Amino acid sequence: MRKFVFEALITLKNGILDPQGLATQKVLKRLKYPIENVKFGKLITFEIEAENEKNAEELAEEITYKSLINPVLENYELKLLKEIEA
Amino acid sequence: MRKFVFEALITLKNGILDPQGLATQKVLKRLKYPIENVKFGKLITFEIEAENEKNAEELAEEITYKSLINPVLENYELKLLKEIEA
Repeated sequence: MRKFVFEALITLKNGILDPQGLATQKVLKRLKYPIENVKFGKLITFEIEAENEKNAEELAEEITYKSLINPVLENYELKLLKEIEA
Repeated sequence: MRKFVFEALITLKNGILDPQGLATQKVLKRLKYPIENVKFGKLITFEIEAENEKNAEELAEEITYKSLINPVLENYELKLLKEIEA
């Protein structure tokens, strides 16, 4: 079996309120930084054991979509970062 | 003035307890997924207005280090994603 490291970048869909981002932006603007559009998301990394890259990617997709994100509110981008020695 | 979009990927330093990651991993293992090392981090994107790329990068570094992360607990990686029309 081989081991693969994945990274899921999870962001809120357009139109979904992001209070953490808004609050952070307000504070940074008060500090006079020329900043706009601060948005908070999640970064989740994990390792999958599988026979090959294809199986690992299918599992990672399934886990991300079914368990890590909320498909109503969030978008995600899944990246295979590297293979490590099992 | 030009506008640049940055992405800060924020992860916990080695040895810092990640209860969200541990809990998620436990659930996914119970569901029989071959998963290890689940780690939660943050993804923050923002736009900076600056005269040039160098100034924008300096500001983004300063904002990330001083205001977005906790340097005792967290590491970060800052990426310039793109320039947009101001």
